Amino acid sequence: MIVVLKHGVPEEKKIQLMNWLEGQGLRLHISNGEFQTVIGLIGDVSGIDIDLVSSLDIVDSVKRVTEPFKCCNRKFHPEDMIVEIGDVKVGGGHFVVIAGPCSVESEEQIVAVARAVKAAGADMLRGGAFKPRTSPYDFAGLKAEGLELLRIARKETGLPIVTELMNINDLPLFEDVDVIQIGARNMQNFDLLRELGTLDKPILLKRGLANTLKELLMSAEYIMANGNERVILCERGIRTFSDYTRNTLDLAAVPMLHQLTHLPVIVDPSHATGIAKLVPPMALAATAAGADGLIIEVHNDPIHALCDGAQSLLPEEFSALAEKVRSIRGVIA
Amino acid sequence: MIVVLKHGVPEEKKIQLMNWLEGQGLRLHISNGEFQTVIGLIGDVSGIDIDLVSSLDIVDSVKRVTEPFKCCNRKFHPEDMIVEIGDVKVGGGHFVVIAGPCSVESEEQIVAVARAVKAAGADMLRGGAFKPRTSPYDFAGLKAEGLELLRIARKETGLPIVTELMNINDLPLFEDVDVIQIGARNMQNFDLLRELGTLDKPILLKRGLANTLKELLMSAEYIMANGNERVILCERGIRTFSDYTRNTLDLAAVPMLHQLTHLPVIVDPSHATGIAKLVPPMALAATAAGADGLIIEVHNDPIHALCDGAQSLLPEEFSALAEKVRSIRGVIA
Amino acid sequence: MIVVLKHGVPEEKKIQLMNWLEGQGLRLHISNGEFQTVIGLIGDVSGIDIDLVSSLDIVDSVKRVTEPFKCCNRKFHPEDMIVEIGDVKVGGGHFVVIAGPCSVESEEQIVAVARAVKAAGADMLRGGAFKPRTSPYDFAGLKAEGLELLRIARKETGLPIVTELMNINDLPLFEDVDVIQIGARNMQNFDLLRELGTLDKPILLKRGLANTLKELLMSAEYIMANGNERVILCERGIRTFSDYTRNTLDLAAVPMLHQLTHLPVIVDPSHATGIAKLVPPMALAATAAGADGLIIEVHNDPIHALCDGAQSLLPEEFSALAEKVRSIRGVIA
Amino acid sequence: MIVVLKHGVPEEKKIQLMNWLEGQGLRLHISNGEFQTVIGLIGDVSGIDIDLVSSLDIVDSVKRVTEPFKCCNRKFHPEDMIVEIGDVKVGGGHFVVIAGPCSVESEEQIVAVARAVKAAGADMLRGGAFKPRTSPYDFAGLKAEGLELLRIARKETGLPIVTELMNINDLPLFEDVDVIQIGARNMQNFDLLRELGTLDKPILLKRGLANTLKELLMSAEYIMANGNERVILCERGIRTFSDYTRNTLDLAAVPMLHQLTHLPVIVDPSHATGIAKLVPPMALAATAAGADGLIIEVHNDPIHALCDGAQSLLPEEFSALAEKVRSIRGVIA
Repeated sequence: MIVVLKHGVPEEKKIQLMNWLEGQGLRLHISNGEFQTVIGLIGDVSGIDIDLVSSLDIVDSVKRVTEPFKCCNRKFHPEDMIVEIGDVKVGGGHFVVIAGPCSVESEEQIVAVARAVKAAGADMLRGGAFKPRTSPYDFAGLKAEGLELLRIARKETGLPIVTELMNINDLPLFEDVDVIQIGARNMQNFDLLRELGTLDKPILLKRGLANTLKELLMSAEYIMANGNERVILCERGIRTFSDYTRNTLDLAAVPMLHQLTHLPVIVDPSHATGIAKLVPPMALAATAAGADGLIIEVHNDPIHALCDGAQSLLPEEFSALAEKVRSIRGVIA
Repeated sequence: MIVVLKHGVPEEKKIQLMNWLEGQGLRLHISNGEFQTVIGLIGDVSGIDIDLVSSLDIVDSVKRVTEPFKCCNRKFHPEDMIVEIGDVKVGGGHFVVIAGPCSVESEEQIVAVARAVKAAGADMLRGGAFKPRTSPYDFAGLKAEGLELLRIARKETGLPIVTELMNINDLPLFEDVDVIQIGARNMQNFDLLRELGTLDKPILLKRGLANTLKELLMSAEYIMANGNERVILCERGIRTFSDYTRNTLDLAAVPMLHQLTHLPVIVDPSHATGIAKLVPPMALAATAAGADGLIIEVHNDPIHALCDGAQSLLPEEFSALAEKVRSIRGVIA
Repeated sequence: MIVVLKHGVPEEKKIQLMNWLEGQGLRLHISNGEFQTVIGLIGDVSGIDIDLVSSLDIVDSVKRVTEPFKCCNRKFHPEDMIVEIGDVKVGGGHFVVIAGPCSVESEEQIVAVARAVKAAGADMLRGGAFKPRTSPYDFAGLKAEGLELLRIARKETGLPIVTELMNINDLPLFEDVDVIQIGARNMQNFDLLRELGTLDKPILLKRGLANTLKELLMSAEYIMANGNERVILCERGIRTFSDYTRNTLDLAAVPMLHQLTHLPVIVDPSHATGIAKLVPPMALAATAAGADGLIIEVHNDPIHALCDGAQSLLPEEFSALAEKVRSIRGVIA
Repeated sequence: MIVVLKHGVPEEKKIQLMNWLEGQGLRLHISNGEFQTVIGLIGDVSGIDIDLVSSLDIVDSVKRVTEPFKCCNRKFHPEDMIVEIGDVKVGGGHFVVIAGPCSVESEEQIVAVARAVKAAGADMLRGGAFKPRTSPYDFAGLKAEGLELLRIARKETGLPIVTELMNINDLPLFEDVDVIQIGARNMQNFDLLRELGTLDKPILLKRGLANTLKELLMSAEYIMANGNERVILCERGIRTFSDYTRNTLDLAAVPMLHQLTHLPVIVDPSHATGIAKLVPPMALAATAAGADGLIIEVHNDPIHALCDGAQSLLPEEFSALAEKVRSIRGVIA
């Protein structure tokens, strides 16, 4: 860590700070420049509160020399991580397509959609059994029954299942779920993340609506530091002033995350845009940007079919998209 | 709910939609204008997915006529709610000042700060025992021991205590806490909110970094719909492009929330700005904007005292501020 | 325009409003529903201030039935507009690659870069002669001399030139420039836009950092309403809380703009990200999202070459990128 | 300027960079720490492109030791600047209230509002003659005639006039305007700012919707560096995801700007919120935050009076507000 002091700081305040830093068990490397003093801290700085030191009125700024994340840091893991779910692989050149309905509604629905997306080339099935809803009056999912229907669809198609967990106490129900999804609203539910770190199961971690890439990585770090290294990151749009889509899909996060971490990064164009017509172009764009996979909503019910589903594709639309995705993979891989 | 159809929609699609809506148990009131058809939905619309209907390609827009929140809606509760915590009252003309350190660190510290803020006129004591931290490697609070130290400080000063809960499973430890604080990151932890609805204890609910006022109210609704009406809202800054403060304090939320809801609204200028020097002007501004209270960080430890504490005031700074706050209350009340 | 009144509005206020609306020369179509009154306004509503009417305390909301833009509205121009610059075409299936240095620095530099990008397949040459700079102390471009050097590079390579205009009074110097670029900061410089409407020359209009798509279209409308229909839109990133790139590239704007307008839409991945390594993936993503072209910074000078240029590619990097772009065009076209 | 190199940089690249920096006329102060090399640059660094150096792949980060603004920097001007407009003073303890209609509409209107706001204690009259409008089809102001009507109102009341300039070429019409206002959209119209620097007239400079405080100060610097030091800054809301007000009023900008600059800072609560009911609480909050003044919209026309004007107060509302503002000034001054 490097502490840059302000110009013209009184000598006694400087000494007070240096004594305090040494009292924390650090060695100091002082460099007196013409304009400023720079103090290099040598030793274990993990106990130093960077915000506190930054706020001292004699301090101009503080810089970490090493990133605060280790387990998910590309520097220490130069090779791409490949997460395996049965025969399915994600990362390190392996591209995954996850598809399925927003909510699991009935056996008929989930099996039909699972068959359709499998035929179109999907690798895994998604479907919500526990649904986070802004309003307490809205449908919150079929819960345990929904998980049961997903298992049936898995049995019928062989597709591994991906579904969202919201509450630590529901974990026992998720024992044979293939990939546990953590939604944007729970990205900083730290107790939940810590618990996921004790599992032997891949975690799909979605970026929060207002979270930076560093915060996303620190949340992955919570899981990995507890022993579970199988984390897949997911960009799904951030909240901005722009109002024509539900969120703003931040695709530059894909190559940037690839630079920072060895974890696979997939993209959810359905939730990011909230508009079915924008899903195919954004899915293709994510693929071209180098994403390791896509998670896409597909439905088969009549009211959606009557018109445009809010953000879901019809099976035939998904199928046409999946083919173009494969062609773009051919160009960039 | 009002559904406005697009101009020139084919008659058959219109009929398909109307049949579907009637199938949901609604009566329809059709108004054919020169430019558009407007369908009024009469009956219980709570089961209608507004996003889905909006997305239909024959629909121009959908408007709710009634807000989706009821328990916390000013329309149905014209009188201000007054939340009582022992002798302390918040709302309906009663202004509350909550003060204390960021984290509970030791008995000596918390008792000293509690005494100092009481002397300066604080009504309640705050202090973190369970701390949400972006990094898994950072200090996460003294936990149960911290709660114990808060109880000691309460015994010494008589100040009710306010402290943050992050995990449903820790609830038993919070039994004799006076006010449970829910932090910004948990504002949409819906299972936690639902559980809080079963308690007979005031909840201090902080606005999330990227949440709209409607979302904040819907989260209050989760608690209230489950039976606990004693909710205090807290504005503590939102995430924007502006980078000189940690967050952007959105003070217009105070009068706007007062228009929408009868719940008390307090402001946290310490976390919003993250800079001690900005805390007094923002505390005064919040008071002038009509807030029902303030929650402010105060510390007494030497490294903070050496310089500016990151966002905490010294007891004497807090005392001077509290006096000005009372004068401003005199002007606007 | 549709005006929805609030529930339970006093009859006399309703009548006052209706009289005022009729006084503006409109016919009214009233629809009294169970919950609300909806007033349809028939006639020329262009003189009605929608913000004013929305703000009336008896009004719940106001909706425009027709968009406020006409000249650039896809509804009235279903065919893609193709903008021609000499032999170069943009839009309607024609993809354009514009490349060149950030600033024109010397004859040697601009001619060398122009030759290199031409060899790699660029269709037009970009280069700044007038540079908007946040600081008055920074280099603001070679101005008239820079334009002269661009003309030399055009003569040497045959590439049409694209360069930024900041000030109406400089227009005479731009007479033989092929495409005038209007930067993000001038997107709402309305007097400048109006003046551009009197020219017979294509305009490259960049989206402002905090502007919605509607505002971008209204700015195009300023130019087109004055007679100049040759407008090319450009997405170049918006300002958000996300801090790892200079701006957040909003690629969903590309398909959304294609839905709203018949104008061509290109993307600037260099300014959006500000980081050279992110330019190729974002250029490929923009192509896959259906953009009608790219504008990319390319440099050839030694300090850039020593390391990574901030956001500029080397000619050989650009050349490799341009080839992949063509392959992706092959997939999606 | 301090350049921090990455860990483990090859010696030859380090030397190449140092040679290049010395070639720019700088002396270097090298400090080799255990983890990193820090290079202090001594001499005139104004010609160094900080973005370029930051982007070099051997560079970890670059920090300016001195802010890039000088004329408006509090460090070099510890005393508050007091801007005088006739007998009216702003800054250094002098509080100014500017009020008037959004647009100048007629002699009758502007004179009536001017008289009303003067009676309520306003110090200056505002009113738009040239109006920036998002749509080319909207009313853009009475222009020269509007300026003439403002002069009449000034003659009738003695109030100095404040009005917006959008175009350099209109400057001759503004010769006897007392304060020229530069709107949010023109905050980075650098040629316009430079021209204002040649005038002997106070400039009211509004913060742009997506501009940081540093950018606002750099724009003030454009004016001041050209010789005109009489700049008044104005916070008027920024663009965020929050959607219940037109913009988010960033009141912490007031004390922060006071720390960074000696220029007066006023607040516009009318444009920031766009909602009349929120104007009084936000005006009081701005006063309590330490603003040096307010600029508030006041109207007197019947359609506004019938109901709430979108964002304008009635004269009697303004009068009640002005009195409370004076009381709050009494508390904080």
